[in-house]
Amino acid sequence: MASPLPASDAPLYKRVEQRILGMIQTGSIPPGRKIPSLRETASAMGVSLTTVVQAYESLERIGVLESRPRSGFVVRQPAAALPPAGAPTMDAPVARTVRRGEIVRRVLETLGRDEVLPLGVAQVDPALLPARTLSRLLAEVSRREPDRVAHYAPVAGSMELRRQVARRLALAGVLAAPEELLTTCGATEGMSIALRALTHPGDAVLIASPTYHFFLQMLELMGLRAVEVPSHPHTGISPADVAEALDRFDIAACVLTPTWNNPDGSCMPPAAKAELVQLLSSRNIPLVEDDVYGDLVFPSSQPGNAPRPPACKAFDDHGVVTLVSSFSKTLTPGYRVGYLLPGKAVATKALEFKGMSTLSGAAPTELAVAEYLERGLYDRHLVRVTRELEQQTEAMRLAVSRHFPEGTRATTPRGGCILWVELPPGGPTGVDVFLRAAAEGIGISPGLLFSNSGGFERFLRLSTGLRFTPQVEQAVARLGAIARGM
Amino acid sequence: MASPLPASDAPLYKRVEQRILGMIQTGSIPPGRKIPSLRETASAMGVSLTTVVQAYESLERIGVLESRPRSGFVVRQPAAALPPAGAPTMDAPVARTVRRGEIVRRVLETLGRDEVLPLGVAQVDPALLPARTLSRLLAEVSRREPDRVAHYAPVAGSMELRRQVARRLALAGVLAAPEELLTTCGATEGMSIALRALTHPGDAVLIASPTYHFFLQMLELMGLRAVEVPSHPHTGISPADVAEALDRFDIAACVLTPTWNNPDGSCMPPAAKAELVQLLSSRNIPLVEDDVYGDLVFPSSQPGNAPRPPACKAFDDHGVVTLVSSFSKTLTPGYRVGYLLPGKAVATKALEFKGMSTLSGAAPTELAVAEYLERGLYDRHLVRVTRELEQQTEAMRLAVSRHFPEGTRATTPRGGCILWVELPPGGPTGVDVFLRAAAEGIGISPGLLFSNSGGFERFLRLSTGLRFTPQVEQAVARLGAIARGM
Repeated sequence: MASPLPASDAPLYKRVEQRILGMIQTGSIPPGRKIPSLRETASAMGVSLTTVVQAYESLERIGVLESRPRSGFVVRQPAAALPPAGAPTMDAPVARTVRRGEIVRRVLETLGRDEVLPLGVAQVDPALLPARTLSRLLAEVSRREPDRVAHYAPVAGSMELRRQVARRLALAGVLAAPEELLTTCGATEGMSIALRALTHPGDAVLIASPTYHFFLQMLELMGLRAVEVPSHPHTGISPADVAEALDRFDIAACVLTPTWNNPDGSCMPPAAKAELVQLLSSRNIPLVEDDVYGDLVFPSSQPGNAPRPPACKAFDDHGVVTLVSSFSKTLTPGYRVGYLLPGKAVATKALEFKGMSTLSGAAPTELAVAEYLERGLYDRHLVRVTRELEQQTEAMRLAVSRHFPEGTRATTPRGGCILWVELPPGGPTGVDVFLRAAAEGIGISPGLLFSNSGGFERFLRLSTGLRFTPQVEQAVARLGAIARGM
Repeated sequence: MASPLPASDAPLYKRVEQRILGMIQTGSIPPGRKIPSLRETASAMGVSLTTVVQAYESLERIGVLESRPRSGFVVRQPAAALPPAGAPTMDAPVARTVRRGEIVRRVLETLGRDEVLPLGVAQVDPALLPARTLSRLLAEVSRREPDRVAHYAPVAGSMELRRQVARRLALAGVLAAPEELLTTCGATEGMSIALRALTHPGDAVLIASPTYHFFLQMLELMGLRAVEVPSHPHTGISPADVAEALDRFDIAACVLTPTWNNPDGSCMPPAAKAELVQLLSSRNIPLVEDDVYGDLVFPSSQPGNAPRPPACKAFDDHGVVTLVSSFSKTLTPGYRVGYLLPGKAVATKALEFKGMSTLSGAAPTELAVAEYLERGLYDRHLVRVTRELEQQTEAMRLAVSRHFPEGTRATTPRGGCILWVELPPGGPTGVDVFLRAAAEGIGISPGLLFSNSGGFERFLRLSTGLRFTPQVEQAVARLGAIARGM
């Protein structure tokens, strides 16, 4: 499906890129064939030759085109088509105490270390985030209200921010009063508060398989057991599988990322979300919904003016869902601004648990993010960043198809910033690749991080949040060579 | 003991104030007697009459002097001398599961609400904190390194900040490498990390009686039991009492504020700190040392060039002490910048627990505080703020002695920003006063917050962090009237 034309504030060359990508994606120019010449495109779009050159070179850099002597630019032939990833085949679920090992510690330790090419961290390239604008707003609010930002914010969070979050949530179908919301130090604190409010050590928690490895670490640190339900890389977990697990186990809470699940990039269809919430309501089982990627919807996957996919919380008539999210993936992780909309079982305890966890958030950064939202900058930013993420994801898929061994499979995400890659059987495992790559300064996340039941050994998760530079392409080529056992 | 002359950057009238206060405190001018005339002081100090008037009026406002027609200014007679508070008399200690009620929730809810005169919150008046300078530094670091502050800080915290903290800790006798330190979201997160690393639900934790009410809330939320050891308002807990409790109970950890304990303002003598650490080392029992007030030493209580009192951590040759502190009491609570120096039992887990709690601190505020310290501004600020705190505490004691019922007793703190007041038997309790005062917009902390064994009903804690304005004096007068049952 062709990407819509980018908004008119995009650089000209980006519009040229989009046009060519559209022609390739719709099949009008198959692999190996010449694309329109520089002059043809310049004249057809009414732009300068320089602009077209810039666009073609950019497409060459991300691996879509290659330049051939005397033929000009042709559409690059993928080394092999990349089959879509399938759903994991799982035995009947069990409830297992979570115990993780050394490898998790190693991955955690590389976080924030800038000497590594961080393809193992699911985050958007700092170059795509509005760091300068945020810094300016931070300076502005701090100078305007120095006493206020130096003082404690309310335990529940700055009201300005809660108001803005409430407005954003409406786009996910969630109607919440600002007073119901709690700000948190990233989604991490929200998740920690929700789990502490809902569970006791020894309880069983239902999660997707694969799931975000931090959830597993949290379950381990809290002495909880995990019941895993398979996630399909397109549609996520199925309500029928959840129902089966609920029949067999005494589940204290579910922890899911229904929109762009980490690591498989799946998004539950709205009907499945509604069914899931109804099922949980009928049994009064709380769901902690992680929505940190919810705003990162690829432009081509949301036709027309449709907003982002609805959150599970949108279908929550009975208060079983606690929604947890943040601006760490979309705006800035360093400001530590997240939020929590509690379900009924969390509502009475959330404030107290936040008081015990951090007392309150950093007032200056909460107010700077609120200001960014209030000025309407966030929507414009999302248009830009999701367009880039879609292109980077496509470039990453292409590079994987080109460099990884035959038989490699990968997801086709429609949002988020990660690619979930399955290596063919018989070769190096995800951990093999992780260890070799780490030694060469390339970070990835091996598949076994994402499950407590020993699956996904042949998987690895790549971040597509980074700009697809030649350095990233080289890193993917190197990963492919390692995966081929070289 | 007379306060030393304030540093030369103090306003002139402050120096006059200090001179007069010194004469009163040393007894050279007893209550009821005239102080030197305006002209005498102006001439003796070589300052203008206006300056002396300013000083005398300031001393009148805080209740030290009163002006009498034709006699000029005389030293005000306290309504009744305020006897020092004694140590609590306690039955043999027991280990009690911590269960707190509605009153704690109410106090917590008033935190951060600016409609209340916050005498119930142990914090320094925002007017005494360098909010503008911090805002300027926040703007500077954010503009200088926008990408860096927008990105995750390392899980362990920004290295600049850890370096500066390591330098400060040396003044408390603690030698630590920056790499050993972890930054935290206030001391709250540090305390939460330490307790989660050291305890399991059902464990017994040794605390002082009275102790900071947040510790009790934390113990409750974590399902822990409390063993209380009496704290003397001058010297804190005694190692002998701790030894007795260790003999009788299986103690998983101790949580103490050895320097300016909240709420009784006690400071354990260095020898007692050393003895306590030795005792705990010999039994391998970890101590979590809360040091948030450690830098707030009243000038008159630290003779000459002596630095602040040593921390327990200074005597910790065997790694049993985990030190937790922050800049929330001394610089800015709103920036949420704290730190943790782990003992050996916490060291291996601290990073993982921080990862699960908040992942990392807010990068902009961590770097702004680091910059403040690096420029040497913190030391100068401490000179100023501790001088003010000492005067405010003295003014508060005076006001309590004047307005509260006969038989009221109070502590004589030598640091920190709180006064611990014991009402005479037979009248209203601390909770009675709290409820009436809250209804009139005055916040205080009733004594029963500070113990899990039902003691301290006749106590209340007043913040001396606020500037002693006429509004505060009126509030104290009103509290006194309430305490007298009016």
